[in-house]
Amino acid sequence: MKKPKLITRSHGAGGLLSQQLIAQQFAPLLKRAGQALNDAAVITIGDTKVAFSTDSFTVSPLFFPGGDIGSLAIHGTVNDVAMMGGLPEFISLAFVIEEGFSAQALHRITQSVAEAADRCSVAVVTGDTKVVERGAADGLFINTSGLGVVPAQINIDPRQVAVGDVLLINGTIADHGVAVMCAREELDVSGEILSDSAPVADITGQLINKLGEKVHALRDPTRGGLASTLNEITTQAGVILEIDQTTLPILPQVAGVCEILGLDPLQVACEGKVLAFVDGSVADEALTIMKSCGGGKQAAIIGQVIGADWPQVRLRTPLGTTRIVEMPPGEILPRIC
Amino acid sequence: MKKPKLITRSHGAGGLLSQQLIAQQFAPLLKRAGQALNDAAVITIGDTKVAFSTDSFTVSPLFFPGGDIGSLAIHGTVNDVAMMGGLPEFISLAFVIEEGFSAQALHRITQSVAEAADRCSVAVVTGDTKVVERGAADGLFINTSGLGVVPAQINIDPRQVAVGDVLLINGTIADHGVAVMCAREELDVSGEILSDSAPVADITGQLINKLGEKVHALRDPTRGGLASTLNEITTQAGVILEIDQTTLPILPQVAGVCEILGLDPLQVACEGKVLAFVDGSVADEALTIMKSCGGGKQAAIIGQVIGADWPQVRLRTPLGTTRIVEMPPGEILPRIC
Repeated sequence: MKKPKLITRSHGAGGLLSQQLIAQQFAPLLKRAGQALNDAAVITIGDTKVAFSTDSFTVSPLFFPGGDIGSLAIHGTVNDVAMMGGLPEFISLAFVIEEGFSAQALHRITQSVAEAADRCSVAVVTGDTKVVERGAADGLFINTSGLGVVPAQINIDPRQVAVGDVLLINGTIADHGVAVMCAREELDVSGEILSDSAPVADITGQLINKLGEKVHALRDPTRGGLASTLNEITTQAGVILEIDQTTLPILPQVAGVCEILGLDPLQVACEGKVLAFVDGSVADEALTIMKSCGGGKQAAIIGQVIGADWPQVRLRTPLGTTRIVEMPPGEILPRIC
Repeated sequence: MKKPKLITRSHGAGGLLSQQLIAQQFAPLLKRAGQALNDAAVITIGDTKVAFSTDSFTVSPLFFPGGDIGSLAIHGTVNDVAMMGGLPEFISLAFVIEEGFSAQALHRITQSVAEAADRCSVAVVTGDTKVVERGAADGLFINTSGLGVVPAQINIDPRQVAVGDVLLINGTIADHGVAVMCAREELDVSGEILSDSAPVADITGQLINKLGEKVHALRDPTRGGLASTLNEITTQAGVILEIDQTTLPILPQVAGVCEILGLDPLQVACEGKVLAFVDGSVADEALTIMKSCGGGKQAAIIGQVIGADWPQVRLRTPLGTTRIVEMPPGEILPRIC
C-alpha cells in the first residue's frame, strides 16, 4: 500500500483511498482497543453492552432540500449507533464555527438539532463550541457522538454474513447525495429531489427485537453509497453478494440526474437507509417488518449471498448480464455529509 | 441579553460572550436533558453512572512546545471526564482534515494520540475522518468524546461549594496559553515555556477515592483561565471566593510574558491543571494527595470560600488589597485549544 505525501479530498470520500488512509492511520489505534472498523464501537460499561459512535459533519451547503447540517448530525450518529444494534439514547454536540457566521443561521441549526433529537428520542447531554477566524473553517462543522444500549444477546457482525443470507434495503438509493449536489451546484432539476436524511433506529430496533440472531449485519450506506458499504461487508465476511438491479428502489428523477452527470447511483450516499443482511429463512418477515416502519414503505429485497469463495459484489442487470461493483476509488461527491 | 447578529471570535474564547452564546443556543438543549453546563454530562447506563464529554480542538499551531493537537485532544477530554468524577476509559476520535495536509504531520499526530491514550489508560474505540477542500479548514481539527464510570456514591457538583471550602490547584497557571501564543507569534522568550498539557485524572481519582464526599467541585481552567472557571463555579454555588495572589503558582517566565503583553495570567488557559474545592476539614490532606501525584509537585492551597451573600471572585494582592476578578468579556487568546 503506497503511503500518500499529502491528504487529498479522495481520502475523505469513503472509497478506496479513504480505506487506505484509515487502515494506515487509524486502524492500528482501534485494533489495540479490540475494535473492528464498524459504524460504531461496542464497549462494555458496568455489565451493559453499549454502542459508541462519532461523526463529524462538513456538508456543503449547510441547508439543502430535505434537511440541514443540524438534523443530519443527529440522524447520522443515531444511525451509526443503530447499525451495531444499539438503541440510541445520548448524544454529544460540538460546533466549530467560522467567525462572521450568521447567528440566525446558527439558531435555525440548533433548532433543527433539537427537533431531530426529539424525533429520534435521544437527549443532547453535553456540548462544546469553538470559534475560528474567518477563512479557517467553512461556516460551520458539527461533531456528534452517540451512545445506545445493545441488547445483551445481540451481536451484529458482518463476519456472520453467509451463503443464503438475503440483503434488504428500506427504500430508494442515492437521494441524499444527489439532493446535496444539486443544491450546491444550483442545478435546476425537474421534480425536486429531497435528501432522505432520517433516523432508521426504529427499523433496526424492530428487526433485532423480532428476528434476534437472524440479523447478521446492518450498515447505513453513506459516503461511497452501496458500492462502498457492500464491498466493506463482503470483504469482512469473505462472501460473494449478487444484487439485482431490477429490484433496487430509485426515484426516476434521481436516476435521471445520475445518468446526465455520469454518476453511478450505487456510489452515491444515502442518509436514511439501512442495508440489512438477514438469514434467508426470515427474508419475507424482515421485509414485512421494514415495510411496517416509518421510512420503510419502499423496502425491498435487493440481493443475496451466493458464494463464499472470495469477496465480491456483483450486479445483475435488467439484461441478465452481471458486472462487478467495485469499491469507488476516491472522490465521488465531496462534502455530502 | 442582546442577541448577536454575527458570531465573533469572542464567542469562542471562554468568556462572557461564550457564556451568552451557550446560554442562548445550547443550554436549552442540555436543560431539556436534565444537564447543567459542566465539563461533562453525568448519565446513567444500565445502573452505572457515566461521565460523557466532548471537545473540539482547533489549536494553532498544531505543534507547540510541550505538546500538539493530538495529545491535547486526548488530555483535554480525559480531563473533562475526570472533572465530574469519572474514571476515563473510552475515547472517540474524529478528524476534519484540509486537503493538502501533510500525511507525515498527520502520522505524527496520530502517533501522539496513541501515546497520550496509553499515558491516560484510555482506549480509542471509534473514529471518523472527513477531508474538506483547501481553504475550508485550517490544517486539522480534532474532536474527541470521552466516557468514564463515576463511582456510585460520588456526586461532584459546584452547587455543593460552601463557606469554609478551600480551593487547591495542582501547579502553575497560564503555561499552556502562553506557550501556544509564543509559538504562534514566534516570540523569542528567554527560558522556554512549555504547555502544561497533561492528564489530571490520577489526581482527581485519588482525591475522590480518599476524600469521597468532601470533594465538592472539580474543574479544569482551560479557555478563559482561572478567571472564567472560578466565576462559573461561584455563580453556580452563589458564594464569595477569595484567592491569595502570593500562593498562586506561576513560572517567572510566564509571568514575564504576561506582563510584557498586558495579559492577566488569571485569564490564560491551563491544560494540565485541576481546581479542586474541598471541605476545609480536609484541606491539608487534599494538598498531600495532590503533591503525591504526577503533575502535582507544585500543588498549593490558593483560596477559600468566605461568604455566601452573592457570587464573586476576589484576589488578595501581595499589598494586602483585594480586587474583583471579573469574568473575561471575550477574546483573550484565540485558538489555544
